[in-house]
Amino acid sequence: MYRVHLDASKSYDIFIGSGLIKNAGTYLSRLLPRCRVAVITDSNVYPLYAQTVCQSLAENGFEYDTFVFPAGEQSKNISTLSDMLEFMANCQLTRSDFVLALGGGVTGDMAGFAAAVYARGIPFVQIPTTLLAAVDSSVGGKTAIDLKAGKNLAGAFHQPSLVLTDTDVIAALPAQLLSEGAAEVIKYGVLQDPELFSWMCESTWTEKIPEIILRSVEIKRAMVMEDELDRGVRKMLNLGHTFGHAIEKCADFSLSHGFGVAIGMAIAAGAAGKEEICRRIIAANTACGLPSTCIFSPEELAQAALTDKKRSGSTVDLILPEEIGRCYIQKTPVSELCVLFEKGLSMIKELI
Amino acid sequence: MYRVHLDASKSYDIFIGSGLIKNAGTYLSRLLPRCRVAVITDSNVYPLYAQTVCQSLAENGFEYDTFVFPAGEQSKNISTLSDMLEFMANCQLTRSDFVLALGGGVTGDMAGFAAAVYARGIPFVQIPTTLLAAVDSSVGGKTAIDLKAGKNLAGAFHQPSLVLTDTDVIAALPAQLLSEGAAEVIKYGVLQDPELFSWMCESTWTEKIPEIILRSVEIKRAMVMEDELDRGVRKMLNLGHTFGHAIEKCADFSLSHGFGVAIGMAIAAGAAGKEEICRRIIAANTACGLPSTCIFSPEELAQAALTDKKRSGSTVDLILPEEIGRCYIQKTPVSELCVLFEKGLSMIKELI
Repeated sequence: MYRVHLDASKSYDIFIGSGLIKNAGTYLSRLLPRCRVAVITDSNVYPLYAQTVCQSLAENGFEYDTFVFPAGEQSKNISTLSDMLEFMANCQLTRSDFVLALGGGVTGDMAGFAAAVYARGIPFVQIPTTLLAAVDSSVGGKTAIDLKAGKNLAGAFHQPSLVLTDTDVIAALPAQLLSEGAAEVIKYGVLQDPELFSWMCESTWTEKIPEIILRSVEIKRAMVMEDELDRGVRKMLNLGHTFGHAIEKCADFSLSHGFGVAIGMAIAAGAAGKEEICRRIIAANTACGLPSTCIFSPEELAQAALTDKKRSGSTVDLILPEEIGRCYIQKTPVSELCVLFEKGLSMIKELI
Repeated sequence: MYRVHLDASKSYDIFIGSGLIKNAGTYLSRLLPRCRVAVITDSNVYPLYAQTVCQSLAENGFEYDTFVFPAGEQSKNISTLSDMLEFMANCQLTRSDFVLALGGGVTGDMAGFAAAVYARGIPFVQIPTTLLAAVDSSVGGKTAIDLKAGKNLAGAFHQPSLVLTDTDVIAALPAQLLSEGAAEVIKYGVLQDPELFSWMCESTWTEKIPEIILRSVEIKRAMVMEDELDRGVRKMLNLGHTFGHAIEKCADFSLSHGFGVAIGMAIAAGAAGKEEICRRIIAANTACGLPSTCIFSPEELAQAALTDKKRSGSTVDLILPEEIGRCYIQKTPVSELCVLFEKGLSMIKELI
């Protein structure tokens, strides 16, 4: 088992290893006194893992209630958040109790946001059940819901008290869910870790899941510790995201986040005029079952990118690759976005 | 004009004086660069002051959009919050822009919460237009909405960047709104300031509005600076609130917050067995046009108090008066709440 310790406004451990879910209650009882737990999960994860987790909670003296919402990004809205908060109030949860997010990115983001605002903030614990959540959304305290106007437009910075990543759960995921998470792992590779990137170009990458999660979490951890509130270096984590969010928005969120990021990274390389990097990102995407292009026009994508929250006034901070393992921030006038989408998509078209 | 400076996770000024509203844009331009402003106000305040504020914003180079919601506590819900956030997104507000809350406690709490969660937090400015907001809710960064399950159950700590309290606006308020704010001023008196309390026992108290606001804000400022996140001394500000919230809840929020607090303080004195203090609080309430008792039974009130967010597990931290100017925190089993409501209401019944 690996243990990564993160020191931000809150200090907490991220455990990565086999068999953690069935001992969840034991880990929690070392951290939080016997109290009430709101277990929040979705309709996919509930039948798979809720019973195992809840049994371990009961064995360790916790009282718990379970809230299940329909799986999918379309649930990540203020209406589900409202139901979640009323549920927590009806459970008479207090600031001494906590929320347990059992699921993927949607569950973690929403349950974390509910914990951030319920009674102006109560503790929460993440048990990520997708690779995407394990390497990205469960670590670093960004919580959010989507608005009609755009993805993740409302949220809070609220660090978890503990993250338990069970690698058996991740290894058992269907191919599509592994692919979605792989996009974020490729991102860490492009940002900082050429070796991690090279692993993702091999069809056998799934054999290295624990190591891949560890390397990804360590990269993210360092950035979160340096810049918890996303005002500086943490912006690097948005590689592929400004372009990717625009694609997801144009697809009315029917395209998964990982797919958006994968395409977004290829566009970023193309927009930066880096043909070799673009070629290698496309190769990694392909090895991981990820797409590298989309059906939307540069004009549609640029319009969608306008409401992205990373935009500061009339400019947007784009993350562009210099080489595999090194990227830079480029402040870009929003008026140039359309040209960059055009440049990126053209290069991709030539290469695939 | 008075200036109070507050140093918490954010440092900001609270200006209290005559004619501040018509110069709002000037004060803001010294603090925040020319940017976009979302002016949030309610249907009562909009026709009175929005034009004055917006004209000053325009004169100082700000772009602005106005969001108006139906006045009243019944608007303080997740549905109005949702509309507010979509409005902000449609204005393409970014983290460099800000929210201006123009109104009373409901407006400030909700607009502040919207600013706290939009893009995970953008700046906001308070222009309180009620005495309650001027002496309490505009200072200290507590933002919230009500849930179906209870008042202020969801929210965030998010300090404003500036508070502008125009004393002409406060002095022009109808009697009912002055009374509601007076309850919080009486509270500051009972907590720390016998002289302030004595002012509130005189029918002429409204002649001292600027001084009353200053003294109240100074007391609150010290508590917020010592305990921004409401884990310690700031709990003292809940004097009358645990009892008061229960009354408001039993009345389905048809009773105003100030009225709830006024009755709650009288109950607190009675529950503490302090007859002379109870008598003096009733006298102050009466001088300020406030009630001191209610029609609900101790059993109903105790049940309503159970979901109050100040409860930690099976106990509740009650604030009880020792003398006028000094109070203490008493950790109380929730099972004793009913007896305390009974004791408080009985003493009040004898005294009025």
